[in-house]
Amino acid sequence: MNRKNLINTIREKRSCLCIGLDTDIDKLPSHFSKSPQSVLDFNRQIIDATQDLCVAYKINTAFYEALGSEGWEVMEKTVNYISKNHLKIADAKRGDIGNTATQYAKAFFEKLSFDAITISPYMGTDCIIPFLHYKNKWVIILGLTSNPGSAEFQKQVCGDEPLWERVLKVTAKCSDENNVMYVVGATRGDDIAKVRSVVPRHFFLVPGVGAQGGKISEVMSLGKNDDVGLLINVSRSVIFAGNEKDFASRARDAAMNFRDEMKEYI
Amino acid sequence: MNRKNLINTIREKRSCLCIGLDTDIDKLPSHFSKSPQSVLDFNRQIIDATQDLCVAYKINTAFYEALGSEGWEVMEKTVNYISKNHLKIADAKRGDIGNTATQYAKAFFEKLSFDAITISPYMGTDCIIPFLHYKNKWVIILGLTSNPGSAEFQKQVCGDEPLWERVLKVTAKCSDENNVMYVVGATRGDDIAKVRSVVPRHFFLVPGVGAQGGKISEVMSLGKNDDVGLLINVSRSVIFAGNEKDFASRARDAAMNFRDEMKEYI
Repeated sequence: MNRKNLINTIREKRSCLCIGLDTDIDKLPSHFSKSPQSVLDFNRQIIDATQDLCVAYKINTAFYEALGSEGWEVMEKTVNYISKNHLKIADAKRGDIGNTATQYAKAFFEKLSFDAITISPYMGTDCIIPFLHYKNKWVIILGLTSNPGSAEFQKQVCGDEPLWERVLKVTAKCSDENNVMYVVGATRGDDIAKVRSVVPRHFFLVPGVGAQGGKISEVMSLGKNDDVGLLINVSRSVIFAGNEKDFASRARDAAMNFRDEMKEYI
Repeated sequence: MNRKNLINTIREKRSCLCIGLDTDIDKLPSHFSKSPQSVLDFNRQIIDATQDLCVAYKINTAFYEALGSEGWEVMEKTVNYISKNHLKIADAKRGDIGNTATQYAKAFFEKLSFDAITISPYMGTDCIIPFLHYKNKWVIILGLTSNPGSAEFQKQVCGDEPLWERVLKVTAKCSDENNVMYVVGATRGDDIAKVRSVVPRHFFLVPGVGAQGGKISEVMSLGKNDDVGLLINVSRSVIFAGNEKDFASRARDAAMNFRDEMKEYI
């Protein structure tokens, strides 16, 4: 999905909601058996119940890898189940050089039909370039996250700017806003505003709303640009909103509440 | 495998060779068909031919993920094929917080029987802690790599030290040399010496020897500590030393040459 289509979809749906399929097998409603197939069934029902309300789904690879090769197959089937009108994000946080990055690009953009993958920038732009050869695919680079550990390295001053700012500037030079987004944590509004001032045109993928405490209104008012420029991710607060047989309609209600908050800004 | 056993194994074999199973399906000798099963067959023959010469195998997850769920299954079977007397490293370069890191630990230390996993430290020590709860398992943190991109962030001065040095010091504080190692690139000897002065007791996993230009003699003389403290990884120069039917014995010859160079220092 290219930038233009993404922006149009956001405007049409008046939503920049991304739903995180962090489907923890141990948190499935009790009527599901504890099997990889149950994770797939759960995901399909969540997708059916929410797809008109969101513009993206984000699959956290860790939860699928924890189930072994069957988990990888569930991930494959989940991605295939999501319509082409949604941006499909692999939250994989890979980051390796040259020939290895090329293999990761094959894994997520060819073998799996993701539109985007999250990348950790520690090793430098070598880790990003191989992904940029794919048309209409995206790299979403860790920028400024909002976990406590972000203070240890990301917020350290390198030269005359914090590391996260250097990461944004260096990576933005070898790419553009049509193939790169940044992960920017939602739990501190002033952080979002700072990052927006460094990269005014890029899309941000914003985790941390819901269970982790970030607020939609703050993210929208401080992070939005002329093209909206935001994908706000909610995982647990949507997919595990209920844990009974009505879990899918509870997930829909939760997603609708988040979307309704966004509507006012789009 | 714990530190004591690792050191004993290194001394007994007079080898600190780690063989990287970066098994690119497109580079298999021509008598193999291009199927995931061929990757497994190839790996088994390489392992049979080299296991007395090395102390560790490193599996680069990207090459298996590029083959989809069947590739993940091949990875599983490859890890199971390696004997318990070798350190089994997942070169996965994961790095995510809290509940996601817990899932990655489950994936690699429980579902798969790896002893160690490589981790990218950008998000901070939150990404490392969940792995440390496993006894006799290791986290191998990206320290100072030797790709060109390492200059962009790792070598930037943060406060009064380069970022890589800060990463080493901060991560060493929440762990110790019994559960953490560092990735230190081999292509610049003076880098290895600098890193050794910061963390004198830790093991280093050293990639970059062979195809990438690093020299065993330089790594051994500049990086070794009283417990040897090195795992020197060679991937392509061993596993693809030959590309005919005798590929396994060619791999053995290549591995033996590397081991013989190490012998003098152990």
